[in-house]
Amino acid sequence: MAIKKNTDQGHISKIRKVRKSELSVDDLFDGIQKGDKTALGRAITLVESNQKIHFQKANQIVERCLAKKVDSIRIGITGVPGVGKSTFIEILGKTLTEKGNKVAVLAVDPTSTKSKGSILGDKTRMERLSKEPNAFIRPSSSGASLGGVTRKTRETIPLCEAAGYNIILIETVGVGQSEIAVHGMVDFFLLLKLAGAGDELQGIKRGIVEMADAIVINKADGENLRPAKIAAIEFKRALELYPPKENGWKPKVLPCSALENDGIEEIWSIIEMYVERNKMSNNFLSKRKQQNKNWLFDTIEERLKSDFFGNETVADEIENYVEKVISEEISPFRAAEKLIQISKKKNNS
Amino acid sequence: MAIKKNTDQGHISKIRKVRKSELSVDDLFDGIQKGDKTALGRAITLVESNQKIHFQKANQIVERCLAKKVDSIRIGITGVPGVGKSTFIEILGKTLTEKGNKVAVLAVDPTSTKSKGSILGDKTRMERLSKEPNAFIRPSSSGASLGGVTRKTRETIPLCEAAGYNIILIETVGVGQSEIAVHGMVDFFLLLKLAGAGDELQGIKRGIVEMADAIVINKADGENLRPAKIAAIEFKRALELYPPKENGWKPKVLPCSALENDGIEEIWSIIEMYVERNKMSNNFLSKRKQQNKNWLFDTIEERLKSDFFGNETVADEIENYVEKVISEEISPFRAAEKLIQISKKKNNS
Repeated sequence: MAIKKNTDQGHISKIRKVRKSELSVDDLFDGIQKGDKTALGRAITLVESNQKIHFQKANQIVERCLAKKVDSIRIGITGVPGVGKSTFIEILGKTLTEKGNKVAVLAVDPTSTKSKGSILGDKTRMERLSKEPNAFIRPSSSGASLGGVTRKTRETIPLCEAAGYNIILIETVGVGQSEIAVHGMVDFFLLLKLAGAGDELQGIKRGIVEMADAIVINKADGENLRPAKIAAIEFKRALELYPPKENGWKPKVLPCSALENDGIEEIWSIIEMYVERNKMSNNFLSKRKQQNKNWLFDTIEERLKSDFFGNETVADEIENYVEKVISEEISPFRAAEKLIQISKKKNNS
Repeated sequence: MAIKKNTDQGHISKIRKVRKSELSVDDLFDGIQKGDKTALGRAITLVESNQKIHFQKANQIVERCLAKKVDSIRIGITGVPGVGKSTFIEILGKTLTEKGNKVAVLAVDPTSTKSKGSILGDKTRMERLSKEPNAFIRPSSSGASLGGVTRKTRETIPLCEAAGYNIILIETVGVGQSEIAVHGMVDFFLLLKLAGAGDELQGIKRGIVEMADAIVINKADGENLRPAKIAAIEFKRALELYPPKENGWKPKVLPCSALENDGIEEIWSIIEMYVERNKMSNNFLSKRKQQNKNWLFDTIEERLKSDFFGNETVADEIENYVEKVISEEISPFRAAEKLIQISKKKNNS
């Protein structure tokens, strides 16, 4: 044990000493495999880089990490600001590391450029968890588009898994499109809510509730305990009127107090039950396969669109056609046809 | 009055006598403007045609009809087979024609090729309505893809409106993707359900409930009356837990018996109230404008995808890459990149 530790430290100091640009794919991958947080962090920085010279190296690392099959649970956690996501994730993370797990926390927050990092940017909010040797916390890269952030998060997951993190918690703010993307990259999707405030006040978008595998009514403590329990019962009843998920799972609803560490064990039991059931029915693996496939087709679509709308002549003409379509001068189909023709002319010239 | 009738009949016989291929855009548009069902039917056939030689003519007719601004209400009606859609639409249609409206019924049914026309194919199901001079019923064209059917339905709407039909009822089966497309082309979206049977039995897809502006529990008659009323109350309560729509509308829930013509007037009052409120707040028009804009972008996406996946080399390679992505040999992003490169090579060669 002592020897292993020394070796690791020797390795870490090597990674730390070498200038970023000189680190080879082998160095980084070795470091990741050994669970070295510095190597993992640098590899993620490479993946997040928008510089073309980093793409090849990043791709190689991602592919090598993907090849390393590991058992993991990917959990998406969403909820509007103020619902207590950070406290919840910190307590859940602590509970899980205490059970012997290695926990990585990633954030998808396309709003962070505006709000200067509304989630995870302020690392001190997860101070206790960040000190855990078996926890790795990574704030979202700012300045990237939603597509960019989710792409990077998607590619960061296998890196964390290759580094031995068997539980990946992915935080999203739940007010934009990000939660749909996150829903598409996790095994279990958890929605945090508060009792009392209506959805309109909580800023929850329509459709998010339907995506949840569990709804947790947070801040079920003190005077709020009773309202939270009532809200949980009401939600349970409401969800029963909705169709079950494809895998037969009926979303669970339960109150919780992240502050008082009350209800966290129950939530974890539900996630474990979910994973166990879905692994037995093979739904766990088939969902992941389907997610990979969806990601391929989504990425192709994104690329096709960015190529099309990035075409200069199309960019010049599009507003004109949008106006005509809005005022019903031309049918949307004909306008689309014309714009496609325009994009092809440009390509051929 | 008598003179007008004679003129119309003279016109109709002209349209009927001329061979389809010889009818000019002017002839068809004139006929449509005069409310001639034969001309309208032939123009729709042109729009539905998959033959390239018909495209230009069809486009011209659609554009001329679009230019003719008319006041209309477009209503989407969905529900699984057996819920009583035909009976419901027939009674609603009769009620509306009796109030002096002209009602067109269109169907979006991509499954009709398999089921040999499960909706509207069997016209006798709406026998009474089809005999109404102020009703026009058009079954869906079979053999087209979903994209094709919805495109054609979308372009058929302005044709019907130009022919004076001020209420357009669009029927969809509610088990596939078609209802999302229909939701995007109507002012009001109505979901028919039955009491008692769970959603799993009713085959309702997740997400449909959230799209509805009203949920009607049909077959609220005889022994089923009480369960239908209870189901309506439960749904009302459940919907209150969901966020309101962007326009502030809270979806209404009410029982109805299409068979006994009970509740139809109430449903129509709700639709009228909805239309009135949304016209006052300008949400009615802005929703239509947004729909037109969405249709432009959706159509562009569809075209880009069909061009890409129609590329021979891409078609040859795609399965290979899907396999690699599923087995995590390659990341979805890299696979997408490679396929995009492949598609471009083919274009340049």
